[in-house]
Amino acid sequence: MRSLRGVLVSAPFIAVDWGTTNRRAYRIEDARVAATERDDMGILAVPAGGFAAEVAGLRARLGQLPVVMAGMVGSNRGWHDAGYVPCAATIEAVAAAMARLDDDVAIVPGVCVDAPTRADVMRGEEVQLLGAVAAGLAPADALLCQPGTHNKWAVMKDGAIADFTTAMTGEMFALLKARALIGAEMTGEVDADAAFREGVEACADADLLSALFEVRAASVLGRRPPGAAAACVSGLLIGSDCRARITRPGQVVHLLADGLLARLYTAAITIAGGQAVVVDSHASFVAGITRIRNLMS
Amino acid sequence: MRSLRGVLVSAPFIAVDWGTTNRRAYRIEDARVAATERDDMGILAVPAGGFAAEVAGLRARLGQLPVVMAGMVGSNRGWHDAGYVPCAATIEAVAAAMARLDDDVAIVPGVCVDAPTRADVMRGEEVQLLGAVAAGLAPADALLCQPGTHNKWAVMKDGAIADFTTAMTGEMFALLKARALIGAEMTGEVDADAAFREGVEACADADLLSALFEVRAASVLGRRPPGAAAACVSGLLIGSDCRARITRPGQVVHLLADGLLARLYTAAITIAGGQAVVVDSHASFVAGITRIRNLMS
Repeated sequence: MRSLRGVLVSAPFIAVDWGTTNRRAYRIEDARVAATERDDMGILAVPAGGFAAEVAGLRARLGQLPVVMAGMVGSNRGWHDAGYVPCAATIEAVAAAMARLDDDVAIVPGVCVDAPTRADVMRGEEVQLLGAVAAGLAPADALLCQPGTHNKWAVMKDGAIADFTTAMTGEMFALLKARALIGAEMTGEVDADAAFREGVEACADADLLSALFEVRAASVLGRRPPGAAAACVSGLLIGSDCRARITRPGQVVHLLADGLLARLYTAAITIAGGQAVVVDSHASFVAGITRIRNLMS
Repeated sequence: MRSLRGVLVSAPFIAVDWGTTNRRAYRIEDARVAATERDDMGILAVPAGGFAAEVAGLRARLGQLPVVMAGMVGSNRGWHDAGYVPCAATIEAVAAAMARLDDDVAIVPGVCVDAPTRADVMRGEEVQLLGAVAAGLAPADALLCQPGTHNKWAVMKDGAIADFTTAMTGEMFALLKARALIGAEMTGEVDADAAFREGVEACADADLLSALFEVRAASVLGRRPPGAAAACVSGLLIGSDCRARITRPGQVVHLLADGLLARLYTAAITIAGGQAVVVDSHASFVAGITRIRNLMS
């Protein structure tokens, strides 16, 4: 084995990021992606008792190799409950707690906060977080943000996940758009535009429950252009999320995101007084799962 | 005409509190309820062009009398858009802006905030707010709270609605319970118990989007008794709402509520440092609509 950017390079294996609704699989050789596939075979799409057959299918397509999986496949709704490693969680502790289904199939455990005053859980995100530091894409002491349905903010210390907070930012946006009274107003595309910035600004002065209703009032009174409300609500939610986490001016946030989410969070973090550094989340996952695989042997 | 608790007493009439999903009608004589009925013929249940027939039905049951209506019947989805009176809104200004459909049928306008930095709307609640003061049930200068789907907090000055804020507290609880990931955890009855108070306390230390996700984490980690999560979420939302509005210790809030909502808001207001005084919302509506009716002539 040889070292590449601090990540030991070992024999080829299959890595699977297996979520609730989607699945992404990689054949990894020398800490690089040699082949990949993505589909909607999330754990909810797998019939009871069907995980072994799914893994056989992955091997048929990607190679007869050891398989290392992360994400909701390790939850009590997945193949096997892989448990949680408590914070502060090092990559070594995560690798030592792997759930081994047989000699060549293993599942990464989640990470939890189980402190006297707070509880939190993650499952799947820990690979990216630990991998970002392992690959040198983020410093060993940093605030990392992973936008998504359940947005994670992780405090990294000495390369370990020292503490983290989950916010239901993405889920809340989807709920409001699909089901709330203001959902009828939430037309138009969301981007980091003036309406989004207006939302980020507004949430500094008002609590979320009243700021959200104001979207309805502004529409009824004809104060907002049609098509601007969805971006404004996105700004309220992401702004509220960022303002709660950025506690000092100039605070650097390493952002594991790309595309629209990277643009939105960069804008909100900047307005909230912080400074965003975008990190390649895909490269972080590959680095993290490779490092965990190497530590297992 | 004679005066009763500051409310002029006039000829009998029919008052209708006509909301989106429910309708309540009263025959009012001498500022007292002589007969009442309640049904689910909210505006969404009335077919296009069907409002006149509905009013004829009310008159057949309650008497051939003038009809004064308030609520969503005066919205652009109701019978006739009765517009909004801007804050500060006196009861005289509301009565002067009544939408008269004919000599004996009128709809109370809503009230709005249309300030440079804020927008808000109410429709129906103004009758209770102005009526509470008109009947002497609340002081002319007071903070009034009307819990509900879209909770109203009104600042009354000299008996007028000087300013108000709407929070989507009730709608958010219903959305989360029915549709969110944490909805699966939200079992059990809600009351002003230990779990509710825990939620009210918790929202002082955490932003709402992360405090809500913690309900999921606490369940996954087995930290909360089954059946306690719904009350905790209710405490988070109502606590967040009350904390945003109670700005000084000992602040008195006149609470237009009864039953469970009165218990929940009284507990949350108290924990947030305020003092709740429960006001009869039914009596406030009757006093308000009677005073408006008298001012119309």
